Amino acid sequence: MKHIIFGESHGSAIGVVLENVPAGVELDMDFIRSELARRAPGRNALSTARREADEPRILSGVFEGKTTGAPLCAVIENTDTRSKDYSKLKDLPRPGHADYAGYIHSEGCGDYRGGGHFSGRLTAPLVFAGAVAKLILREMDVTVSARISNVAGIPDPTPEQLEEAVLGAKADQDSVGGCIRCTVEGLPAGLGAPDYGRNVEGIFSQHLFAVPAVKAVGFGAGFGFAAMRGSEANDPFCWEGGEVRTRTNHSGGVNGGITNGMSVEFEVAIRPTPSIAREQDTVNLATLENAKLTIEGRHDPCIVHRAVPVIEAAAALATCELLGL
Amino acid sequence: MKHIIFGESHGSAIGVVLENVPAGVELDMDFIRSELARRAPGRNALSTARREADEPRILSGVFEGKTTGAPLCAVIENTDTRSKDYSKLKDLPRPGHADYAGYIHSEGCGDYRGGGHFSGRLTAPLVFAGAVAKLILREMDVTVSARISNVAGIPDPTPEQLEEAVLGAKADQDSVGGCIRCTVEGLPAGLGAPDYGRNVEGIFSQHLFAVPAVKAVGFGAGFGFAAMRGSEANDPFCWEGGEVRTRTNHSGGVNGGITNGMSVEFEVAIRPTPSIAREQDTVNLATLENAKLTIEGRHDPCIVHRAVPVIEAAAALATCELLGL
Amino acid sequence: MKHIIFGESHGSAIGVVLENVPAGVELDMDFIRSELARRAPGRNALSTARREADEPRILSGVFEGKTTGAPLCAVIENTDTRSKDYSKLKDLPRPGHADYAGYIHSEGCGDYRGGGHFSGRLTAPLVFAGAVAKLILREMDVTVSARISNVAGIPDPTPEQLEEAVLGAKADQDSVGGCIRCTVEGLPAGLGAPDYGRNVEGIFSQHLFAVPAVKAVGFGAGFGFAAMRGSEANDPFCWEGGEVRTRTNHSGGVNGGITNGMSVEFEVAIRPTPSIAREQDTVNLATLENAKLTIEGRHDPCIVHRAVPVIEAAAALATCELLGL
Amino acid sequence: MKHIIFGESHGSAIGVVLENVPAGVELDMDFIRSELARRAPGRNALSTARREADEPRILSGVFEGKTTGAPLCAVIENTDTRSKDYSKLKDLPRPGHADYAGYIHSEGCGDYRGGGHFSGRLTAPLVFAGAVAKLILREMDVTVSARISNVAGIPDPTPEQLEEAVLGAKADQDSVGGCIRCTVEGLPAGLGAPDYGRNVEGIFSQHLFAVPAVKAVGFGAGFGFAAMRGSEANDPFCWEGGEVRTRTNHSGGVNGGITNGMSVEFEVAIRPTPSIAREQDTVNLATLENAKLTIEGRHDPCIVHRAVPVIEAAAALATCELLGL
Repeated sequence: MKHIIFGESHGSAIGVVLENVPAGVELDMDFIRSELARRAPGRNALSTARREADEPRILSGVFEGKTTGAPLCAVIENTDTRSKDYSKLKDLPRPGHADYAGYIHSEGCGDYRGGGHFSGRLTAPLVFAGAVAKLILREMDVTVSARISNVAGIPDPTPEQLEEAVLGAKADQDSVGGCIRCTVEGLPAGLGAPDYGRNVEGIFSQHLFAVPAVKAVGFGAGFGFAAMRGSEANDPFCWEGGEVRTRTNHSGGVNGGITNGMSVEFEVAIRPTPSIAREQDTVNLATLENAKLTIEGRHDPCIVHRAVPVIEAAAALATCELLGL
Repeated sequence: MKHIIFGESHGSAIGVVLENVPAGVELDMDFIRSELARRAPGRNALSTARREADEPRILSGVFEGKTTGAPLCAVIENTDTRSKDYSKLKDLPRPGHADYAGYIHSEGCGDYRGGGHFSGRLTAPLVFAGAVAKLILREMDVTVSARISNVAGIPDPTPEQLEEAVLGAKADQDSVGGCIRCTVEGLPAGLGAPDYGRNVEGIFSQHLFAVPAVKAVGFGAGFGFAAMRGSEANDPFCWEGGEVRTRTNHSGGVNGGITNGMSVEFEVAIRPTPSIAREQDTVNLATLENAKLTIEGRHDPCIVHRAVPVIEAAAALATCELLGL
Repeated sequence: MKHIIFGESHGSAIGVVLENVPAGVELDMDFIRSELARRAPGRNALSTARREADEPRILSGVFEGKTTGAPLCAVIENTDTRSKDYSKLKDLPRPGHADYAGYIHSEGCGDYRGGGHFSGRLTAPLVFAGAVAKLILREMDVTVSARISNVAGIPDPTPEQLEEAVLGAKADQDSVGGCIRCTVEGLPAGLGAPDYGRNVEGIFSQHLFAVPAVKAVGFGAGFGFAAMRGSEANDPFCWEGGEVRTRTNHSGGVNGGITNGMSVEFEVAIRPTPSIAREQDTVNLATLENAKLTIEGRHDPCIVHRAVPVIEAAAALATCELLGL
Repeated sequence: MKHIIFGESHGSAIGVVLENVPAGVELDMDFIRSELARRAPGRNALSTARREADEPRILSGVFEGKTTGAPLCAVIENTDTRSKDYSKLKDLPRPGHADYAGYIHSEGCGDYRGGGHFSGRLTAPLVFAGAVAKLILREMDVTVSARISNVAGIPDPTPEQLEEAVLGAKADQDSVGGCIRCTVEGLPAGLGAPDYGRNVEGIFSQHLFAVPAVKAVGFGAGFGFAAMRGSEANDPFCWEGGEVRTRTNHSGGVNGGITNGMSVEFEVAIRPTPSIAREQDTVNLATLENAKLTIEGRHDPCIVHRAVPVIEAAAALATCELLGL
């Protein structure tokens, strides 16, 4: 399944086209809506107040409730777009955002409003695509589940710790980052290859780094391998329950770029939301002079919790690719 | 430049084919040999004693010392192949290695000798390909340089610390892992895209995870972002020396999947060498019973230092891809 | 520029997503509409009476009239969809159409109404994409132009011959095929490669065979080469006007898969419209018995003239791919 | 199975790397050699006298006689290379050959000897790759077979007509072209897709146009469709032998880019050998003046018969791609 996500934060609509969708998959719209709702903003004190229905309109590829195998296009209209908030940022790139990189990339023609095509809002169609992927994987008994593994440096935070860290940053006109740990269960051994373009970790990371704010990806023990010795890092094999397993899973279910039959496990780092209320240093791209910038409007002091279903979506799409779907 | 690396540790030869090489690049063989020598084993107490000439034979794509634009194939003959060391491992997959995953992947038909196609020896043709990439990048004033940033949990180790850690592990019949940090300098802003398949971090990680033993990749502050606040993580812009720069480079030169004109910086984790002298638990794949395994022969107690030119090679190939070469 | 065309004849909308569009291209909507009008049906006695506004709605990738470099999605709503005409064809595949192949492909879940995703109507978004490609090529002084080179076996027909052939077939409840010849002017020598996936003829033919009804593609003399001798087929070189040219262009501007600086010229065969009013033999897919089929409704007795802008569109997209855009 | 063919006519070796080969395929070397022998020159009066052993050396991807799933590299050494024949052609591009296009493409750095990478000799590794593909298809009861369908304008020539046409051209210091018709039997209905990059005709043509001298490709009736009416062109369905079939196969087994269960049939045009003994007009690329050129040495006055196994090889590779192998 190849996919292209399109749209801008303040354009008329955002969406996704999925190519090579298997035919005959029942498109469980309740499930899809529930996945979109997990990502949606405005549900509590930790998120922005922007509210979008995020109701996908299926334009193609579905007939009588099932996928046809033809390209599936889904569109979500943009309704709550307060463009005025952003117009004065046109020449003042926001630190930590893609404003400047995108300005050069688009030769000055980019849609700067609300991050344009770089906006976190574009993760809505990604979650849609991931929900379709999950429906396909469900039929193969493959599941994808992610959870917050770190917020503001706190490993495996409780809801109270999470709330405290986020509200603390908000009070300081600041933001926090974190980590998400994800597990794909039910994959057989032997998928992938050691070679460039075909190995499991490469396929997953390609999808994961396409999620805005992801800056690091580690499989199994990840960067923890640096401080381990081989005797600890190696996962001993055992014959158990009629199959070959490993007693530990430091390798995250992958050896030599190939699944080994254990759960595929990885962690990603999510950078702190770049939009903070404090005054920041920037450069005026029109006058080419140093300048000060204050970002107004309401912004998430933390996006880690909202990124959980997005990471699952990226992992579900990667899993489909790995399975040759 | 597309590339395919082929060969097995104990087959007749290993090599690489490079497609879409720009025409007219002078193939500086002294440079290529010096890169291969950086990776070669057997040079000191820290490495295995296996010695290979690693002299590449160019079969195609080069005429009168310059690339022609046609596919470039280079082959390195295998000469020092002591297959007997490995024959008894056929049914006993080594923990931490790809033996079991590869066994399933190849439906039992894989070349199990010395890791076969999964062997670290396959990084020799990768270094060759990377050397060609570096020669191309040299003409564009783009440089790639990596260094050890961690060994056995010790950040930025001195040579003495490195030696002590490695020899200590060796004495314990064990091995150590580490990290490598790499910088690509000279890239303009605006390369890449936020989208799947085209973003800078995705392109680099695809190449990096194809290097055996790499288990994690982080850009800029990487997993360090989890404990940072936005006010610290954001790189403030400044107008300096006639160009837009950032005062810090926590983003590793990439925002929204696009280069921002600063150095592209990333770190990878290298798992400890799985081949250790201690007895380990495994499963006999022929009898499907639990078994014990002792790996004989000489093996690197640490490959981090040898992996430095390999990571540079992968980064050079990724950079060429990013530049549309 | 990668593109995915989506939609079904009787679905809610059809459209296209273009990825990797160069930034800063002024989107001349008058030109785009004029290209769509060239393809539109219902303009004279030779075409079906179905009328669609074919007004594209740009959802993304364009800001203040210019492309941004982000994925460009354009949608054309389906308005004139008389689904009842088709419902009784559900189990009776129409000879010459993709009904049966599509039925198997979609595991019986396809949208059978009006050809679904296989409908010639899907060439509207293709013409849209081609118009964008032409606007890009215009800035590089590259032009694409096609013409009818054969109708009903008549080479280079006059409008009168064309009309006579088409109306004659219509009177016989039949249809006619033909050929279209296309020229791409302004390409430099040296583009392409001899190798699989990169050669000029391969790139063009990949795009051309994706046009419904195209069943053959020939470059330069095409199948005429079979009856030529080398002394006639070879295009002699000459030094003329300060450049290397060939006196003839039997090679169609391509040698060894690479442009030689002359116009790229090719011809495609368009099969006769499969929808004819005569009774035809088919199989009832529900009962698995032989059956008779009569296609009702209004259908083009010839689509060759309407296919001219479609072939230009495919050629413009191929040219962009060849140029690395 | 992705493949890259490398080498030059007068370089040290030619070969191919196949990636993603299924594991466990017995590599029947007798069959592979017999396929290479079908293509080899020097076997009768119709071919050049150049003799090469064409013995492939397998460097990788095969263990104990079976494929391992790892990249398979095969190399054929060049032994009979009379480079002196070609040195004086360096600045005189041969009409009909890729010399000039390749000169520009390689920025003057190409290996001009004997056509270099453009040489028909490069079809030897293609036949090797095709033989591997045939061995894979054999296990699925899919067969590929081609035959000469035209020589020098004579349809379906007898061996006597073929010999007469070729020897007649040779006597005139000239050459002849022709056509090859190929059939792939045993494919199920439903493979492919109507969309760009995935449709059957596009996939096949991509492989076929990568064969030197192929200038046109038509499926089923091909260009013959232009003179047919729909009532003749449409293939009526029938229920026969417990399956849906068509009474005729003008569509060549493909509708809407998807296999319909009938044999996939296509024809290609092979241009006359550009190397002829007559004096020809060219341009001296060093002096940029018009010049005369006489090609010496022995050349095939016809390559159509030698191209038959090459077309089969390209079709076998295309079939594997279509099957998702």
